[in-house]
Amino acid sequence: MSAVSTPTQIGYTIELALAFDEAIQLVTEELQKEGFGILTQADMQAAFQNKLGKDFRRYTILGACNPGLAYQALNKDLDVGLLLPCNVIVYESEQGATVSIVDPIAMLGVIDNPTLDDIAQDAKERLQRVYLRLLEN
Amino acid sequence: MSAVSTPTQIGYTIELALAFDEAIQLVTEELQKEGFGILTQADMQAAFQNKLGKDFRRYTILGACNPGLAYQALNKDLDVGLLLPCNVIVYESEQGATVSIVDPIAMLGVIDNPTLDDIAQDAKERLQRVYLRLLEN
Repeated sequence: MSAVSTPTQIGYTIELALAFDEAIQLVTEELQKEGFGILTQADMQAAFQNKLGKDFRRYTILGACNPGLAYQALNKDLDVGLLLPCNVIVYESEQGATVSIVDPIAMLGVIDNPTLDDIAQDAKERLQRVYLRLLEN
Repeated sequence: MSAVSTPTQIGYTIELALAFDEAIQLVTEELQKEGFGILTQADMQAAFQNKLGKDFRRYTILGACNPGLAYQALNKDLDVGLLLPCNVIVYESEQGATVSIVDPIAMLGVIDNPTLDDIAQDAKERLQRVYLRLLEN
């Protein structure tokens, strides 16, 4: 299994030589190791088929949430829910599956509340470890 | 029913003199009028109780998605899923319920892809109309 990474402005992108469903499972397991559960899950292929009758590649938006960090953040700023959960997208690609993990620090720039910096940094470091472990696969 | 609005950096906030469940229902109906369905829904009170054993006010993150706009956006930039769906948060407050609607233009600043500007502007105008109708309630 090989992995290639690409920097983006908003997160970390990895190409995995895995089938789509296997990629979802691996990403879910790696997120769990860092205390992130899957709070929401949106199947965009199904949504476009059902609502528009249009074909689309397999594409899932995982809403990853570390409850302890979310609890701290919402106790500091109730509006931070506008940025939760942390999105991790998985979609079919030529190599197998592409995974993109959002950068919580980039997202937090939208709010500009310095009291949230430590929490966002903690979340970022956890998601970076997920990214690094996915790279090793 | 009275409504008070507050500008935030990231969205539009409205205080509604409605019970929490009534606010969720009203917001959902107003979003539907602008073509936004509820793609995901996260009950943060339940999440904190179940995962941490901690009490929290009623707080729901609605993931609102206009399928037509999302389809256009993802066909231009697959990474835009990192910013989808559009969050609308509803939480218990002294007045009844507080609603905050994300500003898609503020969010899109994170990606900085000009080809998405028109779509984000369309989404913003729709969500602004939701906001204005909630203000009138």
